[in-house]
Amino acid sequence: MRQGAHAPARPVRFCAVTDNFQELRRKIAEVSDLAHASSILGWDQQVMMPPRGAAGRAEQMATVGRIAHLKFTDPEIGRLLDELAPTFESLDPESDDWGLLRLARRTYDKAVQVPTELRVEMARAAAEANPVWMEAKATSNFELFLGPLERNVELRRRYIECFPKMDEPYDVLLDDFEPEMRSADVTRIFDEIKAELVPLIAALRDREVDDSFLFGHFPLDRQVALDHEVVDMFGHRPDSWRIDPTEHPFASGAGIDDIRITTHYYEDSLKSLFSTMHEYGHGLYEHQIPRRFAHLPIGQGASLGLHESQSRMWENLVGRSMPFWRFLYPRVREVFPEQLGKVDVDRFYAAINRVQPSLIRIRADEVTYGMHVILRFELEQDIVNGRVELSDLPTRWAEKMDEYLGVEVPDDANGVLQDTHWASGLIGYFSTYLLGTVMSVQIWEKAQEDVPDLEDRIGRGDFATLREWLGDNVHAYGRKYSPQETLRRIVGTGIDAKPYLAYLEKKYGAAVTA
Amino acid sequence: MRQGAHAPARPVRFCAVTDNFQELRRKIAEVSDLAHASSILGWDQQVMMPPRGAAGRAEQMATVGRIAHLKFTDPEIGRLLDELAPTFESLDPESDDWGLLRLARRTYDKAVQVPTELRVEMARAAAEANPVWMEAKATSNFELFLGPLERNVELRRRYIECFPKMDEPYDVLLDDFEPEMRSADVTRIFDEIKAELVPLIAALRDREVDDSFLFGHFPLDRQVALDHEVVDMFGHRPDSWRIDPTEHPFASGAGIDDIRITTHYYEDSLKSLFSTMHEYGHGLYEHQIPRRFAHLPIGQGASLGLHESQSRMWENLVGRSMPFWRFLYPRVREVFPEQLGKVDVDRFYAAINRVQPSLIRIRADEVTYGMHVILRFELEQDIVNGRVELSDLPTRWAEKMDEYLGVEVPDDANGVLQDTHWASGLIGYFSTYLLGTVMSVQIWEKAQEDVPDLEDRIGRGDFATLREWLGDNVHAYGRKYSPQETLRRIVGTGIDAKPYLAYLEKKYGAAVTA
Repeated sequence: MRQGAHAPARPVRFCAVTDNFQELRRKIAEVSDLAHASSILGWDQQVMMPPRGAAGRAEQMATVGRIAHLKFTDPEIGRLLDELAPTFESLDPESDDWGLLRLARRTYDKAVQVPTELRVEMARAAAEANPVWMEAKATSNFELFLGPLERNVELRRRYIECFPKMDEPYDVLLDDFEPEMRSADVTRIFDEIKAELVPLIAALRDREVDDSFLFGHFPLDRQVALDHEVVDMFGHRPDSWRIDPTEHPFASGAGIDDIRITTHYYEDSLKSLFSTMHEYGHGLYEHQIPRRFAHLPIGQGASLGLHESQSRMWENLVGRSMPFWRFLYPRVREVFPEQLGKVDVDRFYAAINRVQPSLIRIRADEVTYGMHVILRFELEQDIVNGRVELSDLPTRWAEKMDEYLGVEVPDDANGVLQDTHWASGLIGYFSTYLLGTVMSVQIWEKAQEDVPDLEDRIGRGDFATLREWLGDNVHAYGRKYSPQETLRRIVGTGIDAKPYLAYLEKKYGAAVTA
Repeated sequence: MRQGAHAPARPVRFCAVTDNFQELRRKIAEVSDLAHASSILGWDQQVMMPPRGAAGRAEQMATVGRIAHLKFTDPEIGRLLDELAPTFESLDPESDDWGLLRLARRTYDKAVQVPTELRVEMARAAAEANPVWMEAKATSNFELFLGPLERNVELRRRYIECFPKMDEPYDVLLDDFEPEMRSADVTRIFDEIKAELVPLIAALRDREVDDSFLFGHFPLDRQVALDHEVVDMFGHRPDSWRIDPTEHPFASGAGIDDIRITTHYYEDSLKSLFSTMHEYGHGLYEHQIPRRFAHLPIGQGASLGLHESQSRMWENLVGRSMPFWRFLYPRVREVFPEQLGKVDVDRFYAAINRVQPSLIRIRADEVTYGMHVILRFELEQDIVNGRVELSDLPTRWAEKMDEYLGVEVPDDANGVLQDTHWASGLIGYFSTYLLGTVMSVQIWEKAQEDVPDLEDRIGRGDFATLREWLGDNVHAYGRKYSPQETLRRIVGTGIDAKPYLAYLEKKYGAAVTA
């Protein structure tokens, strides 16, 4: 007997596709869960863990990371992606499924190029380099760090060799942090910026601005309360956010409803307030990712650069703007009457926007900041291309600091050893800081176009408008598209330094002419 | 040509065994890392996580738990264990390797009996039952909880069916919490205790003891400081411990160097101090596990019962003893002069040891505590054997409370709904509380035998002697042996209720006669 001869035709192929898709989603959701678990382990490590837990934690994180990598590079995922290729072609590129398949294909194809052993070795070398770097920085002794740095660089060279040849070997590293961005694009943008910034900085550097009142005594408890107040005004929801003190500020968490930002309080300055606004921007991006993306790799910011566009926006375009300070300053003066009682909002605004070339990137003002990043981007390319001996880095660093910012580097702690990135193996990361800053102005201008009275609203303490605009126009895409495609969908064009340079010129150039 | 004809004989079998052992260690260390990662995710969930993170966290923990279970039940582990069977036979049972192979074999053989799907369903049913239980407890409505409870019980029945038939079906559940203990053993011990406790409680219940000064106003900041002071005296090391406030006190962590205990502060009483001493006992056990066991499943306490022996020891045998209070009381009176200024140490000691039958297990005194546990153990057996309809539980609960403690149960919140265990699917857990209490006295007596002036030392504030004795004589075994074998190695015999009953008689019976 032939069974089911009269049964309705079953859409077998469609079902198979659907099953494959369900299976792929299940598999990558698992990897996404592991990534969130890692993220909490990492947060705990920096914020909560008793110090002697470090060795055990390194093992736990290595194990979770290794399993996540093995699960993601499982050939079964490759098979599912291959079988889903016709589906992908037939999908509407506006659909979430298209975005998910695009991202999964791209990250899978990259991940399988790299042997697990190399990945494990890179992680271990970074873990070993970090404490050496800390000691080298503490004693300002670059020699000490040279060996671990050589090891990290050598492993990155081996990493680059895993991939098909690109125009520049550095492109491979850059792509990990800012997907589909090429060294040549970044060089073009950075050269354009450099040509304007160097003379602008030279013109601004001797301008007299009194910011002495920003240094003094700002009691910690009042700073903590003020930071929370500001973030509450921005739209922090304590049922899904945490704010904690740490040595180095960062944003982390485990998805939409578990956002964690940290800050470092200094008793003698207000800088934690700006760093908190910065991390708020990162946190808000992850918090406003559409709920239907939760659990999936598209459920996160599109790139480090776009992430930085959000943090720099809240820190600078909101947090160092006159409308914002007209609104907030009375309250800040009330909190710190001893320090600010006699300072009016114009003097305060001038002080927090004072341009002064200095040694340390993370303390740099809005104008000089870019040059710190460009310097690192250029040195990284020289490193990867073997155009600089690692032992010569301190000298090259000092030369560039003198050329770009006119400052003299007194020692390596205040020079080449200041940032953790190279110790952590994060070569290729730095440029995203400036790319993000550039994009922040493009996005800000688009927001102003859509909401012409945006600055007035901020001046009235209405942050919901900006927050919701960002949710609808930026965060809504998650990681569905490449970073530059995401930007095009937000502002209509790719990355462009002109709005950023015009913004700096308008905000700071006027002061030069004045 | 025959290669290597003259090469020295290579001990192939030995090498293969060693390789197998290395491979087994590597595989189970991975599972151990995942268990520690889970533990930190669980701690974070209860102590740090913003509430809305709950759904995501449940997924993350389910994923990590599922992977750990799959990795541990990997047939490759079975193969390695089979191949290592001759090695195991040849090993010295005193050796760590013997203990590791014993534990791995036993836990593997148990784990592979249970289909992953059932395990996932059990975890999910518990996760779903918990919020229902919370609401049922808040509204004192047992009916609401009946459905989820039935589901949990039904899944436990299916779980029991996965295993070869034992004397009592309940044995399967008990073994998960107190390995190799059988219902019949527990019944024998508990019946012996019950026979003595019921009349002792009846005799003590009407004794007049003034403990009114234990209820009043104990400012939280001073309680927090005092708790830390006491735990510091006991031997807390801030480089490897954390103490945090939570809704429900617990001990957790991620191994020897990352110990986390929590407590709940009540403004109107000192009970957090006793709960902190209790959790300290748990924490110390994990902290003093030999460092060479780190990363391995033998690197933890031998069972819940033995764990409880440690917590009850620090809470009661130290923390409610006269020598301890002669030492500590002056300091406590100094911290809370308003409450305790006019109370001498004898009155204080009598008050903290007041025996009074009451409704809630976790608030019970040393004497009545056991009856709360016995009641639950008996009901659980009735449940598993189908001797009680779940809908009749409130009635049965009330009857037993009347019979054992002479208290009337006013509502389900103060009765059958008070504990989270059944909502969390932890049927078989309760008896370990009393088994641990029983063992705590056996171990305490052995410690006194070895260190005859132990109580004098505690009376002088020397806690290092006890701490080190426990490290050398209890914690040193980790989980190398079965719980009862561990106890035999500590005290020379298996579990025995007599020392516990003699202790209660000596401490409390005297008061009856007086």
